[in-house]
Amino acid sequence: MKPVKVGLLGLGTVGCGTVRVLARNADEIQRRAGRGIRIVSASARDMTRPRDCDLQGIALTADAYAVVDDPAIQIVLELIGGIELARELVLRAIDNGKHVVTANKALIALHGNEIFAHASKRGVTVAFEAAVGGGIPIIKAIREALAGNTIEWLAGIINGTGNFILTEMRDKGRDFADVLAEAQRLGYAEADPTFDVEGIDAAHKLTILASIAFGIPLQFERVYTEGIARISREDVVNAAELGYRIKHLGIARRRAEGIELRVHPTLVPHRRLLANVDGVMNAVLVRADAVGPTLYYGPGAGAEPTASAVVADLVDVTRALTVDPTNRVPHLAFQPDALADVPVLPIDDAVCAYYLHLRAADRPGVLADITRILSERGISIEAVLQPQPDEEVEDASIIILTAVVQEARINDAIAAIQRMDAITTPLTRIRVEHLK
Amino acid sequence: MKPVKVGLLGLGTVGCGTVRVLARNADEIQRRAGRGIRIVSASARDMTRPRDCDLQGIALTADAYAVVDDPAIQIVLELIGGIELARELVLRAIDNGKHVVTANKALIALHGNEIFAHASKRGVTVAFEAAVGGGIPIIKAIREALAGNTIEWLAGIINGTGNFILTEMRDKGRDFADVLAEAQRLGYAEADPTFDVEGIDAAHKLTILASIAFGIPLQFERVYTEGIARISREDVVNAAELGYRIKHLGIARRRAEGIELRVHPTLVPHRRLLANVDGVMNAVLVRADAVGPTLYYGPGAGAEPTASAVVADLVDVTRALTVDPTNRVPHLAFQPDALADVPVLPIDDAVCAYYLHLRAADRPGVLADITRILSERGISIEAVLQPQPDEEVEDASIIILTAVVQEARINDAIAAIQRMDAITTPLTRIRVEHLK
Repeated sequence: MKPVKVGLLGLGTVGCGTVRVLARNADEIQRRAGRGIRIVSASARDMTRPRDCDLQGIALTADAYAVVDDPAIQIVLELIGGIELARELVLRAIDNGKHVVTANKALIALHGNEIFAHASKRGVTVAFEAAVGGGIPIIKAIREALAGNTIEWLAGIINGTGNFILTEMRDKGRDFADVLAEAQRLGYAEADPTFDVEGIDAAHKLTILASIAFGIPLQFERVYTEGIARISREDVVNAAELGYRIKHLGIARRRAEGIELRVHPTLVPHRRLLANVDGVMNAVLVRADAVGPTLYYGPGAGAEPTASAVVADLVDVTRALTVDPTNRVPHLAFQPDALADVPVLPIDDAVCAYYLHLRAADRPGVLADITRILSERGISIEAVLQPQPDEEVEDASIIILTAVVQEARINDAIAAIQRMDAITTPLTRIRVEHLK
Repeated sequence: MKPVKVGLLGLGTVGCGTVRVLARNADEIQRRAGRGIRIVSASARDMTRPRDCDLQGIALTADAYAVVDDPAIQIVLELIGGIELARELVLRAIDNGKHVVTANKALIALHGNEIFAHASKRGVTVAFEAAVGGGIPIIKAIREALAGNTIEWLAGIINGTGNFILTEMRDKGRDFADVLAEAQRLGYAEADPTFDVEGIDAAHKLTILASIAFGIPLQFERVYTEGIARISREDVVNAAELGYRIKHLGIARRRAEGIELRVHPTLVPHRRLLANVDGVMNAVLVRADAVGPTLYYGPGAGAEPTASAVVADLVDVTRALTVDPTNRVPHLAFQPDALADVPVLPIDDAVCAYYLHLRAADRPGVLADITRILSERGISIEAVLQPQPDEEVEDASIIILTAVVQEARINDAIAAIQRMDAITTPLTRIRVEHLK
């Protein structure tokens, strides 16, 4: 059987990684897929840049449209990143009747609904395993392997940069800013780290995971997002003292009233597997009604891990080339006409437990006042920690772990506590998840 | 579109779990698959037994052949377990042109080569996700998601009973026999626990994993298998002291000379995720050249976790009903004519590190003699531990961790050590894997 012809857009890190993996494992891939997968043409903005891969036998062009419009190409592989140009090229490839494989989470999170509608109408597939969790086959797991389940919730470490920073802060007792600077030196963090540390990248990925888990349209704009920049070394130590680790999680939970979609730092009990996922690694824990908990772990980024997911998609699409479109795995796991119109809940309606850290004047009655404020609002306290105060300062830390409560109610309590005369600094509030 | 018609063989734990899951999640499954999946007939040996599922609408029979021969049935679901009858029924279903879904690891490990050859000739699929790792989609992950990789090795906790026993021994300082009795009371272990504690069940599963990872025929008879019955409470404590945990692992490793296939208790560094998989949970760590390490975790047994895998297979097979057989995922991940003729190495050729535990007369020169025996054979020592000897006994424990060495060489050293006058009891040898 003739090799499948792929046109590659973008010769950056992942593009070159894919060229390398397809070449190095050509024999293994052909033995599995039953036919070869060959990149026949590739486009890149800057054609003169040296590349970390062998481009022999690949027709090169600076014109991405030439690839997308080439009638010989069966699958377009979009690895240019960014949003507007990528969207245009992908839609054009679809209009040309080509299948698409992409690693572009922002594109799928923001324009996936439009892109999948186009693809379904044209009878082609847009595959995007590499968009979430790098080399972890989390899209395939949720979309295919859990097809018999009602999925209840999922929680994931889906940004390697953020997890690297939190791991270093804990292991070495370092400050956020200090570790971030090192991550930038090591190439784990971008020069502009906003997407990673503010949680936007994780929110893109959570948007995708929630859609395929619950069968709802992609709704990036509804994800509540909080970054890790305000996590202090002190909070990391306090969490450890209480038996927890702080992880930056994306959480999607189905409740009777609707769906919670939130990205934020989270205290996780230290014996949970997810609490032990360190450095740049990613992991997603999924809770489903039949199987119970399953967890998927691996490198969330990098040239060849991402290429691994891209090539798996290429093999899947190759197998599906001759398949009647109605028998393919639907883009968002559920048939397009069977998506659910379930509301995404505002963050005020979320329910979870909370870690509160405040500094108060070191005098009698302060803790009593705080517990009264909480109990008046029906908020139970699970634990209180009062570290030995520093000799030199006049105020003391109080750390409180609450039971599970609605977010609006804890916010009301926090406002009341903050109004107390004895409270000397803004209160820190971190959510707690037991993941059971 | 009309529902797919499934004939179920076996109404035991997993059979009933599958009936329940298909009924409870009928709507979610149909929204995903685009059509319903309906069990229309079922067979069971004892028709009078009360069942833990609602059988309304399912035609019941005591004659499994009536299900297999029913022209209305499109997919036969084999959940009777055992080997000979299951083999006959599955082959007959295939001859009748039906697809088969099975959870039967022994059947696949022992007769998979024959069954898949039959199925390929007849153009039907035999799916077996539930045969390994219960609800963990490990077959799908290796066979499809890692299709772009050369797989280097995999190591898995693939028997929940064994892992439960080892976890209890560590957490509660209990003896093997004691915990086994409790596992039997709890229903985690069979009345005859041989398959679980002697590693045969794990060897069946490892046989399957190795084939789909490396593209070799199923070769159960070549798996080296060692159980956990000889692990002592003392070894568990010593391992912890050295920074390790003891796990019963199935390991398949590709080396230049051939493939290692072995099931045995293993010391694993305690910070590895696999070392933290506790109780009846399973997990498989896979190392592949492009993606690096990925890990898959979940419940390895139980009615509904296994049903989750079975239903995923039913959905996959349903989607593939109209697909040209040559475009389906091959049974053993690689095309039948592309399987490799790589030898499975005898255990003497395996290489790993070793934990040695011996009791010797408490007198000078003993440790020097032992280290000489090891060094004469080129075996490096990584660590030595000599726990404080008991006041009442005359001999003392010596624990040695070696560097990586060929198994034949450590066996020769052990024989020489065992011949020393000072050695008072048989030496304990446990393999060590760093899983890097």
